[in-house]
Amino acid sequence: MTKRVAIIGAGPSGLSQLRAFQSAREQGVDIPELVCFEKQSSWGGLWNYTWRTGTDQDGELVHSSMYKYLWSNGPKECLEFGDYSFEKHFGKPIPSFPPREVLRSYILGRVEDTEIYSMIRFNHIVRNVLSSGDKKKFILHATNNENKTDSTESFDAVIVASGHFSFPNSPYINGIENFSGRVMHSHDFRNALEVKDKRLLIIGSSYSAEDIALQCLKYGATTVCCCYRTEPMGFKWPNGIEELPNLRNFKDKKAYFGDGNTREVDVVILCTGYLHSFPFIERNLRLLTANRLYPSQLYKGIFWLDNPNFMYLGMQDQYYTFNMFDAQAWYVRDVLLNKIEIPERDVMENDVSTWQKREGNLKDPIEEIYFQTDYCKDLVKLTDYEIDFDFIAKQFVQWESHKEENIVTYRDRSFVSPMTNNKAPQHHTPWWDEMDDSYDNFVENSGN
Amino acid sequence: MTKRVAIIGAGPSGLSQLRAFQSAREQGVDIPELVCFEKQSSWGGLWNYTWRTGTDQDGELVHSSMYKYLWSNGPKECLEFGDYSFEKHFGKPIPSFPPREVLRSYILGRVEDTEIYSMIRFNHIVRNVLSSGDKKKFILHATNNENKTDSTESFDAVIVASGHFSFPNSPYINGIENFSGRVMHSHDFRNALEVKDKRLLIIGSSYSAEDIALQCLKYGATTVCCCYRTEPMGFKWPNGIEELPNLRNFKDKKAYFGDGNTREVDVVILCTGYLHSFPFIERNLRLLTANRLYPSQLYKGIFWLDNPNFMYLGMQDQYYTFNMFDAQAWYVRDVLLNKIEIPERDVMENDVSTWQKREGNLKDPIEEIYFQTDYCKDLVKLTDYEIDFDFIAKQFVQWESHKEENIVTYRDRSFVSPMTNNKAPQHHTPWWDEMDDSYDNFVENSGN
Repeated sequence: MTKRVAIIGAGPSGLSQLRAFQSAREQGVDIPELVCFEKQSSWGGLWNYTWRTGTDQDGELVHSSMYKYLWSNGPKECLEFGDYSFEKHFGKPIPSFPPREVLRSYILGRVEDTEIYSMIRFNHIVRNVLSSGDKKKFILHATNNENKTDSTESFDAVIVASGHFSFPNSPYINGIENFSGRVMHSHDFRNALEVKDKRLLIIGSSYSAEDIALQCLKYGATTVCCCYRTEPMGFKWPNGIEELPNLRNFKDKKAYFGDGNTREVDVVILCTGYLHSFPFIERNLRLLTANRLYPSQLYKGIFWLDNPNFMYLGMQDQYYTFNMFDAQAWYVRDVLLNKIEIPERDVMENDVSTWQKREGNLKDPIEEIYFQTDYCKDLVKLTDYEIDFDFIAKQFVQWESHKEENIVTYRDRSFVSPMTNNKAPQHHTPWWDEMDDSYDNFVENSGN
Repeated sequence: MTKRVAIIGAGPSGLSQLRAFQSAREQGVDIPELVCFEKQSSWGGLWNYTWRTGTDQDGELVHSSMYKYLWSNGPKECLEFGDYSFEKHFGKPIPSFPPREVLRSYILGRVEDTEIYSMIRFNHIVRNVLSSGDKKKFILHATNNENKTDSTESFDAVIVASGHFSFPNSPYINGIENFSGRVMHSHDFRNALEVKDKRLLIIGSSYSAEDIALQCLKYGATTVCCCYRTEPMGFKWPNGIEELPNLRNFKDKKAYFGDGNTREVDVVILCTGYLHSFPFIERNLRLLTANRLYPSQLYKGIFWLDNPNFMYLGMQDQYYTFNMFDAQAWYVRDVLLNKIEIPERDVMENDVSTWQKREGNLKDPIEEIYFQTDYCKDLVKLTDYEIDFDFIAKQFVQWESHKEENIVTYRDRSFVSPMTNNKAPQHHTPWWDEMDDSYDNFVENSGN
């Protein structure tokens, strides 16, 4: 009998999985029955911008954390698919740091006009996934929000590709209930123009903090103060952005810092990251992890140790994205097609702990990049997925140095495609001066 | 064997249910085993103010829609408990329109220092409720978010008291994705000072719209424009508030109306109400209803027609609140104690349709008040719950006329307690001038 495989989510990871199987079928291989459950009415996952925050029209949690004027913060050459180049999709070379609509177009371009669309059940919310009594099957409860019906189905394997940037991590900050302006998490941030002419306080010091600080200043925030607990981001910030340590308290509109400074601010944005949250998965199958390069409990970063027919895609802290999801998806495919064998439990555990030991000794972002490069190479060596991860790693290292050099201009640099070996053209306008993030402005008015 | 009864939610309705049983036990009656599942870490439901919006520290939907400076919009004499007067709780008479902390104190005062607290499992999220194969039991899956464990238990009856003001109804508004300021639903509104010196657009024309419009103007919004689809609220608004029809579109900060007007605004608040949403209840038991005085599918507004051991409290559109929840809870208690009988299916259906026919002919708020008065009286006539609903109805009617007279001063009026027959004292400061909504300012500095 044909295996039935459930894929939860039709964002980048879920689509990688569907594409991996489709690519095998193109080569004449029989593939399992695939059912992809997607909460939203469209594919693209996090890349579907919405004006909504909190819950959607059906009362379901809004998945996307995407905001207007978001431009890729890494070069597109580092996330290129191994089987579908940017040049193929756009018909010409485009610059290295595209805005969000351009990236969404690229992700969807690979799967549009294929049978993949018909494998996706849109507006379907997965409510509960359990393993069956004998642990050989999985029971999946879902709600169809189009006609408000429930379904219960059985699957031989489940692939969780629901992402980990949708459930805000919102720690309590002393006195925040006394702050008399808007408080929001970056998950609910939508439009930098909201904070035009306002004084902004950003809590956090990772990618969201860096990007939202820059972007809000670019679009007219009066001042941006970022606060950190352990170390500042330390970039050479443009005038208007500063970093202060240890936010202690709030009173009315005033924030008090550990070094004795105070700042009066109008808006607070918590850029404090996300939770790995899977409320729809029973406890025995539920991944509990911080955001790290090699989560526990997952063989090859994918297979649930206690039951390897239950899988997670893309749950790592990420330098690599789309092509790492592909590497994982191709590996999963070949396991499910019985081309790659899952070893005994103790072998899996040893493998995980070897990787985690190395992870524990990483000293800086450069070492982290090489670690994740090796992880991706480890996956693809057993499959037919091809891309030069070593070449990409070198470009990641370059990108890190560009950011150190100048956080305002790093998006103006050009990188070389691992697919075509072509160097990207320059965008017609430096990023800092470019207020238009539309597809047309970037793709149509761009070129060699 | 002792019956096991699950109560979902420890807000006003859930606490009414627990109190109803406790009151029977005080009279020496054997009561079922009660297990109350509460998502929050404290009791009080909607009355627990939080600075959070969207999701909480565990990634669960924020339940409360409470905002700072919220004062009761109905007289406290209309929501007084039949077994616990305001005067008993506060030790003296207090004015008729208390701010939120004062009302929360009153709700909790009746149950504090009783065995009820020990019946509540805090930080427990109900994930899935199903009826068993033979329909004689209910299976309830819950997650304990304190220690991240799951539980599955069986109950003889389930009482859903999870409220219907937590899942925002957020209709799409043409062009809203192009608006370049903050957009939020009233569920996420926290502090009127956020919109000080700003131009506010409110979408909607019910209680939230009325209250948030007034409150924001009081705390310093520059202008407030409310827009309606069918009819304006039509109050005699103070300067600064206006009503316009049929919002058509947005462009940047500009809103376009059906009558040709345009307004430039900084913040949009959707006061578009809430969904009755119960994603954790299986389809066959799930109430699907608009916000109305007599929902379908529920005998006596409570009992699920297809399986009357499954019950809903407080799911009506509400003039009456706390004492109506009591009336329902006392009725439920006596059904579960076999003192009141649930009739045959066709009798139940006829009863529902008789009420709904009357509901369909109601012409104005006054008729609606009398309708809900009769509903409450119908419930209490078979139980030992005592309060004079006719007396309360007359005060509701008075309150409506005060609002028509002057929407800014109606909260300065005094009403008579149905419990003590005492007329409430006046608050020391007119509501419009009173910026301090603290407990101390209202209760301690208040008096005869």
